[in-house]
Amino acid sequence: MTNPSRSSGPLAGIVVLDLSRILAGPYCTLLMAEMGARVIKVEPPKGGDDARAYGPFVNGKSAYFASINRGKESIALDLKNDADRKILEGLLEKADVIVENFRPGTMERLGYGWETLHVKYPRLIYAAASGFGHTGPNSKDPAYDMVMQGLGGMMSITGHEGGDPARVGMSIGDIGAGLYTAIAVNAALVHRLTTGEATKVDIAMFDCQLALLENAIMRYNVEGEVPGPLGARHPTITPFQAFRAADGPIIIAAGNDGLFVKMCEALACPDMAANPDYATNAWRLKNLQLLQKEIGEVLKTKSVAEWVTILAAAGVPSGPINSVAQAIKHPQVSPRNMLVEVPDGSGGTLKLVGNPLKISGFEDPSTRAQAPDLDGNRNDILSWIGG
Amino acid sequence: MTNPSRSSGPLAGIVVLDLSRILAGPYCTLLMAEMGARVIKVEPPKGGDDARAYGPFVNGKSAYFASINRGKESIALDLKNDADRKILEGLLEKADVIVENFRPGTMERLGYGWETLHVKYPRLIYAAASGFGHTGPNSKDPAYDMVMQGLGGMMSITGHEGGDPARVGMSIGDIGAGLYTAIAVNAALVHRLTTGEATKVDIAMFDCQLALLENAIMRYNVEGEVPGPLGARHPTITPFQAFRAADGPIIIAAGNDGLFVKMCEALACPDMAANPDYATNAWRLKNLQLLQKEIGEVLKTKSVAEWVTILAAAGVPSGPINSVAQAIKHPQVSPRNMLVEVPDGSGGTLKLVGNPLKISGFEDPSTRAQAPDLDGNRNDILSWIGG
Repeated sequence: MTNPSRSSGPLAGIVVLDLSRILAGPYCTLLMAEMGARVIKVEPPKGGDDARAYGPFVNGKSAYFASINRGKESIALDLKNDADRKILEGLLEKADVIVENFRPGTMERLGYGWETLHVKYPRLIYAAASGFGHTGPNSKDPAYDMVMQGLGGMMSITGHEGGDPARVGMSIGDIGAGLYTAIAVNAALVHRLTTGEATKVDIAMFDCQLALLENAIMRYNVEGEVPGPLGARHPTITPFQAFRAADGPIIIAAGNDGLFVKMCEALACPDMAANPDYATNAWRLKNLQLLQKEIGEVLKTKSVAEWVTILAAAGVPSGPINSVAQAIKHPQVSPRNMLVEVPDGSGGTLKLVGNPLKISGFEDPSTRAQAPDLDGNRNDILSWIGG
Repeated sequence: MTNPSRSSGPLAGIVVLDLSRILAGPYCTLLMAEMGARVIKVEPPKGGDDARAYGPFVNGKSAYFASINRGKESIALDLKNDADRKILEGLLEKADVIVENFRPGTMERLGYGWETLHVKYPRLIYAAASGFGHTGPNSKDPAYDMVMQGLGGMMSITGHEGGDPARVGMSIGDIGAGLYTAIAVNAALVHRLTTGEATKVDIAMFDCQLALLENAIMRYNVEGEVPGPLGARHPTITPFQAFRAADGPIIIAAGNDGLFVKMCEALACPDMAANPDYATNAWRLKNLQLLQKEIGEVLKTKSVAEWVTILAAAGVPSGPINSVAQAIKHPQVSPRNMLVEVPDGSGGTLKLVGNPLKISGFEDPSTRAQAPDLDGNRNDILSWIGG
């Protein structure tokens, strides 16, 4: 199978051996494939990556799986079988990076821990994404996305004031870890190219949740107040939130004093601009209730679309709250190639999210190679390692 | 000023010229500084980076700014002044990467667009993080985090079922773009080390929002149903959500059939495990209401802590919904060095989030250099470029 994304990209020539499943690891290697790396999934023979069983299904195949595994290759190996271990070792010999998201200790039990691999394959970069990382007392605890969103504090600041905590609508626990893993792996490649030395990357979903909450944690440590959910407003910048226009919610982000004055002009509220109670962000935050009420009174007189046009003309950032259906119809989506076509493996086509990593000089084709069938590239891979 | 993080890391020796402000660009360069790069902030002489004016303040200095700019250096340059432009050009001569998050077109108006710079400084990697990217009809529209959370669809799937959309508690619009920018810049460094060729990185906050929503967009494209907010449960995996124990919310993430059976055993509910209506994830999703009620009845008999212990013993992922205050007391925080001490510049110390990018062979000190005062490293920087 040809891979239109493989030949072109800043990581062209890099081979990634991907032992990871479901989401955090596979999301990292998806980005690497999009950047031109060759990604070889090593899957257990029985069923493969768990995500192959996650819906929705199209012609019997998981679209969940396709969304994050398009453009990769697959070989099924039983890592407890001697013949299959030989094949894995042939792959390790040729790979630049191995990515896994097993529970810590699993690779050691298989005889493929970092200490062992680093001695045998000194140029191999080892990347592990796990729930709690490879050190510390909870290292071996199991972890799933939502547990991490709860444990790391993310849910406690998401949702409406006074209401129950809400999950971030996407899997920020897994995807977050996948993003940090990709950053670290690329940095490790830079280091190896510079010094010849390979390193181990050890990313914890829990650490990543804290990292994403840098602002909330800073505020708590400085002010001593526990941040809570704020619905649809920024914690410290005002006005920077959702309001109600005549026909639905609208977001206005007047991020500084100049934009606040411009907003008042656009809303034809000179008194609001002149009010000393609203003169600085600190004052606006203090008088938030009143300010919100005043702005709300004005906004309810026109539609979201009308206000967005008026505010845009005044240079004030604003916008609607789009559904996913509306978001993908935005006029930037097509010119930025943010929806790509991927064969579903049964003669049909899936429309999946494109690659946000736009880097000059490389193709960004409007199609991608399909997600591999389990063991679907076995022969190619075996002949590549000369097996 | 010495920088304890600069000497050690996979990006040691890399110099980043950082013209970016507030959050998306600075978050990218924070990660680069944490990975050992030397990051030189180029700030406007009047007030510098806007984030210097964002609260909370400690001894008159912005802790918001410190959280994402610790360990960097600062020089104030007026990019419309000839003498200062000479200094910038001296820096461009020596830098590996320039990062900016201006509105597209700003750098061109200053005479420092990619086309110009690439000719003059052929080894310089150029990274732009903007709202809509450097191409497309909306390229030059202004953008702020929450506008992007609204526009890209993120808010529409965050919050409680049937309720108003909620903002993700942290600035996923900006931080998301910062993460993808860091991935792309590191990949561009790999490419330059491999081929000698420098590239332009063009990251759009809007593209990144879509990329983060890969699963929701895939579901919409496959099923035709517009995803909405689901409160604290996973859209397609069941049970994978928050429930109420006797003293508060608890998350249980039984991500597959095996874990569901284990959960039933831990809850002492053999009937639930044997019920054919719950036999597969698809059936559990179909019978969600009833299943939730049954599980809720059992959970309300014990505390969160008791259930977490029982479920952990059974191997079922579960956990509390921690506040930020609770999250940073987790037993992994200290062994993973996820809170570091940073001088506040007035004799005190800030406790800020540590570096989640754990890479073997490099120091991960428990302290970081303070955030720079505006123009605070001018002399060092000038003598470095021989000015």
